[in-house]
Amino acid sequence: MSFRTHLESVVNQVDGALACSVMGFDGIAVETHQRDEAGDLELTGAWVEYANLLGQLRQAAETLKTGAVQEVSVNSERVLTLMRLVSPEYFLVLALRADGNYGKGRYVLRVTAPKILAEL
Amino acid sequence: MSFRTHLESVVNQVDGALACSVMGFDGIAVETHQRDEAGDLELTGAWVEYANLLGQLRQAAETLKTGAVQEVSVNSERVLTLMRLVSPEYFLVLALRADGNYGKGRYVLRVTAPKILAEL
Repeated sequence: MSFRTHLESVVNQVDGALACSVMGFDGIAVETHQRDEAGDLELTGAWVEYANLLGQLRQAAETLKTGAVQEVSVNSERVLTLMRLVSPEYFLVLALRADGNYGKGRYVLRVTAPKILAEL
Repeated sequence: MSFRTHLESVVNQVDGALACSVMGFDGIAVETHQRDEAGDLELTGAWVEYANLLGQLRQAAETLKTGAVQEVSVNSERVLTLMRLVSPEYFLVLALRADGNYGKGRYVLRVTAPKILAEL
């Protein structure tokens, strides 16, 4: 099973999903599956910013007593963005419409992350 | 009604809530309500880091097509942290145990933010 199959499965399972990607902390997407309606949002620009911040958080969390950061979400007026760590180098990112199923998105990323890790 | 009354109300309404605070983007808490069990987690250290990142995100989002960032969440092994913008200078932060009611937390912050704004 390839990355793309997993990413398609995430997008198909979650109501309101726009796009799902495996990204490196350098902000470069390894593989992406995107619905047509996501085209005008230029999600990639946002994700590069978020990857940078997630990388900083990962380092900050090493000194915190709250434990390692596993999941980060950035929600704006139009798009909900969920990110989940897969490995020290890679994370999963899922973009949803603002009215998408956020709870289902969190769940599906949690169960998909180990499947992606197994193929890295 | 003071800030503290609103913060107590948030903590009391959300299962698993540990602490709620009104913070400035400089990382300084204006007012905090904290349950006793939150004491050993040293949440303040985490929040100062998160405030810094939220400030960066706010600026980044001005150039993004996904709209203004309204809500950010950082979830680690032991603590879920929800942050919601109140004004250009202040935000609400709510820490929950990892098994806390995350959806309820999001909802309660959304309805509480305008009440806090009215008193700033």
